[in-house]
Amino acid sequence: MSPEEFRRHGRQVIDWIADYLAGIESQPVMSQVKPGEIRRALPPEPPEEGEPFESVLSDLGRILLPGITHWQHPGFFGYFPSNASGPAILGDLLSSGLGVQGMLWVTSPACTELETVVVDWLAGLLDLPARFRTDAAGGGVIQDSASSACLVALLAGLHRAGSGRVTAEGITRRYTMYVSSQTHSSLEKAARIAGLGAAGVRVVDVDPHTLAMDPGHLRALLDEDAAAGTVPAMVCATVGTTSTTAVDPVAALGAVCRERGIWLHVDAAYAGVAAVCPELRWLNDGVAEYADSYSTNPHKWLLTNFDCAVLWTGDRAPLLGALSILPDYLRNAATSTGSVVDYRNWQVPLGRRFRALKLWSVIRWYGAEGLRAHIREGVRLAQDLASWISADPGFEVREPRPLGLVCFRPVWPGLPADEADRATMRLMELLNASGSMYMTHTKVAGRVLLRMAVGGPATERRHVEQAWEQIRWEHAALAATLP
Amino acid sequence: MSPEEFRRHGRQVIDWIADYLAGIESQPVMSQVKPGEIRRALPPEPPEEGEPFESVLSDLGRILLPGITHWQHPGFFGYFPSNASGPAILGDLLSSGLGVQGMLWVTSPACTELETVVVDWLAGLLDLPARFRTDAAGGGVIQDSASSACLVALLAGLHRAGSGRVTAEGITRRYTMYVSSQTHSSLEKAARIAGLGAAGVRVVDVDPHTLAMDPGHLRALLDEDAAAGTVPAMVCATVGTTSTTAVDPVAALGAVCRERGIWLHVDAAYAGVAAVCPELRWLNDGVAEYADSYSTNPHKWLLTNFDCAVLWTGDRAPLLGALSILPDYLRNAATSTGSVVDYRNWQVPLGRRFRALKLWSVIRWYGAEGLRAHIREGVRLAQDLASWISADPGFEVREPRPLGLVCFRPVWPGLPADEADRATMRLMELLNASGSMYMTHTKVAGRVLLRMAVGGPATERRHVEQAWEQIRWEHAALAATLP
Repeated sequence: MSPEEFRRHGRQVIDWIADYLAGIESQPVMSQVKPGEIRRALPPEPPEEGEPFESVLSDLGRILLPGITHWQHPGFFGYFPSNASGPAILGDLLSSGLGVQGMLWVTSPACTELETVVVDWLAGLLDLPARFRTDAAGGGVIQDSASSACLVALLAGLHRAGSGRVTAEGITRRYTMYVSSQTHSSLEKAARIAGLGAAGVRVVDVDPHTLAMDPGHLRALLDEDAAAGTVPAMVCATVGTTSTTAVDPVAALGAVCRERGIWLHVDAAYAGVAAVCPELRWLNDGVAEYADSYSTNPHKWLLTNFDCAVLWTGDRAPLLGALSILPDYLRNAATSTGSVVDYRNWQVPLGRRFRALKLWSVIRWYGAEGLRAHIREGVRLAQDLASWISADPGFEVREPRPLGLVCFRPVWPGLPADEADRATMRLMELLNASGSMYMTHTKVAGRVLLRMAVGGPATERRHVEQAWEQIRWEHAALAATLP
Repeated sequence: MSPEEFRRHGRQVIDWIADYLAGIESQPVMSQVKPGEIRRALPPEPPEEGEPFESVLSDLGRILLPGITHWQHPGFFGYFPSNASGPAILGDLLSSGLGVQGMLWVTSPACTELETVVVDWLAGLLDLPARFRTDAAGGGVIQDSASSACLVALLAGLHRAGSGRVTAEGITRRYTMYVSSQTHSSLEKAARIAGLGAAGVRVVDVDPHTLAMDPGHLRALLDEDAAAGTVPAMVCATVGTTSTTAVDPVAALGAVCRERGIWLHVDAAYAGVAAVCPELRWLNDGVAEYADSYSTNPHKWLLTNFDCAVLWTGDRAPLLGALSILPDYLRNAATSTGSVVDYRNWQVPLGRRFRALKLWSVIRWYGAEGLRAHIREGVRLAQDLASWISADPGFEVREPRPLGLVCFRPVWPGLPADEADRATMRLMELLNASGSMYMTHTKVAGRVLLRMAVGGPATERRHVEQAWEQIRWEHAALAATLP
């Protein structure tokens, strides 16, 4: 495709996206297709001859769009938000257009240096400790996801715990990692990948009310494991769990880690970016004093489209120790001098997109002020929603709910717990099938809870109000059909 | 940013990219900046208030562009090509614009089903075995990089070798992986990550001429390791090594793996896509009979911008066994029925971009015919270049060089080997500093070789001719200054 053809089709695509975003409310939030429906509508063989670009756009609208669940729809309240925004999309487009590889400093110095600048900017915006800055002993790096960030943290923790032996010799004794029942499943996945196995994952008790990890039980487990001769590689505290946005007591857990020299990673995938607002910085209490590493995802709630997760560490040495290998074909003068950062050594893959461009574009377009306004609006709408639900005797809100996620359940008078849970799931399915809203569920203490995560950039007060009205109405209608 | 603002700024960005691509030859290929220069030109603090999008574009051109090494420049011959193309950039833009998450089928069915279709299409285009198709016991999946694809293959191999015990209990005995000195460094990285350590990586001898892995030595190492009680987790054969595009004898290695039940992964990161051309399918001899998994990167030589690496397996069960975890907040009706694919269980991260869109867009725009023409042009230009170098008594070409990479060295009459190598490196630095071409180097048998990888979509015959003229001229000039 020539530059002039690119210009012409590029405008078509920009128009397609602008029209899509402008008209997104007319789409059902959740795709209504059945398994296999999209696949069957597509040809089983690729075309022998090239086709006009218009065919791609036309099939996108005709065949694929019905199979899309619209994460940018203002009525999307599922999982956590996966914010996209104009400046992020355009920053990412510039990255694709430049088509450079940032694996080494030398393969495109601006790709590395802009990343250094924006992760330092973001550390400042979130008031993270000075030792996370690139000019200190630590530094930040953009990863594709919190899963990868946590895996890298675990590898650094293992490297330190084994004094480098894991990297050299592999796992030759029992290493353990500490999480709670509320920790994201990607941590267990990381432990499996890193060779600890599911058995190396030790599950610390949580407070039954707040669902926060219990530092006393962590200490007890560590004592037990020390007696059994295992080596603790990492404790993962979560700030804003996926299920309910519970916040682990980082300071108390950190004190336990410090006294035993254990790597403390803080997974703040969803909630971390909320610290752009000074009034929400309590979330990170203890991080400055105790965290060896910390990760949060601008691609969830900070207007930067997937993928953009940032991992910081206060000590890059064990991370580089775990992940650096230098074959001849990657040797170069700049790397040899030690005066540059090669981010490939901070991550699993070798290759790297120029992801800093989209985060830079977002921070510049919105400014610190605009980012704070976006987070505050999400929190405000969620808190309003929670207050409406609380005030309705037909529903119960789970407390606490300090951020943009509201967990709640409908009351089904007279139904035993398991039937009530089935009715709650049925209610959710009916609402999601309606096309005007989408939410997901979780389980706490064995009981189903509905999750409404507010924070999409297109979500306004009226969308939350409409969703709540619909939930009430559908609940009443469903309740009337039950025995 | 409103949809209308997006439309306006989107056109500016499309024009910026079209102009950049149209004028790319006026840029020096390799960035000439010094470490820290870009960073110092950027403000140390983020803006408090939002800025106009024009400022982003203006700073991109003014501050960042001098720090870019232009991988899409027709004079870029370094590493391997990292092809971008109009339809790929636009497919990726559509993915950013839709802003959906493909972690589960249910989170956007089209995202999963289009991926199934395009990886099956690509398997057909490359004439890969039927058991790699989704409707068989295997299937394909798009990963971010060959590094990740090889890590996932190793995890599947470990899962099978340990009958699931690695996933459950972790690494509790010695597992080994087999590579050669020519295997990509990401395999050793994968072994470290997976808990085998550098010590678990066994290096099989290569034929000193072809640099292909020696099946006899593999057998000998396996015997030795079996006697020592270690368990072989995976053999990685390479089709087209990074250093010199050497091709391991997959069939002979596969026969050894088969008789011992060892997972055979074939890393064809660069060369695999060349199999779109029937005359190059000899590259994959033995894959159909023996490979348990296979990976190649459309983001290198198949016109699809980074990141897009495809991994196929003939048996998805151990891969899913190693990587599947299902917490309550990801449970859903479609997953429960088992009738859908959830690609999150085929990779390390949970989150997923809609990467299938760009590969779909590329295959449709170019058609099978266009893809073949692109590969053939790269091979033809490289073969012409090699013939010119061969014909010049001032240079030596390394044989074989069957694809788009030509490795060669200048002759420095009278200089001992180490001084000749330094002169060769000096020549490369001078050429790269000229701004009109960029190449990298490797070492074979301790001696420096220059690498010229032809295959960028903008590279025409005249660019290769100019580069060769410049190399000859610069070599003569440098030789004249030597004692």
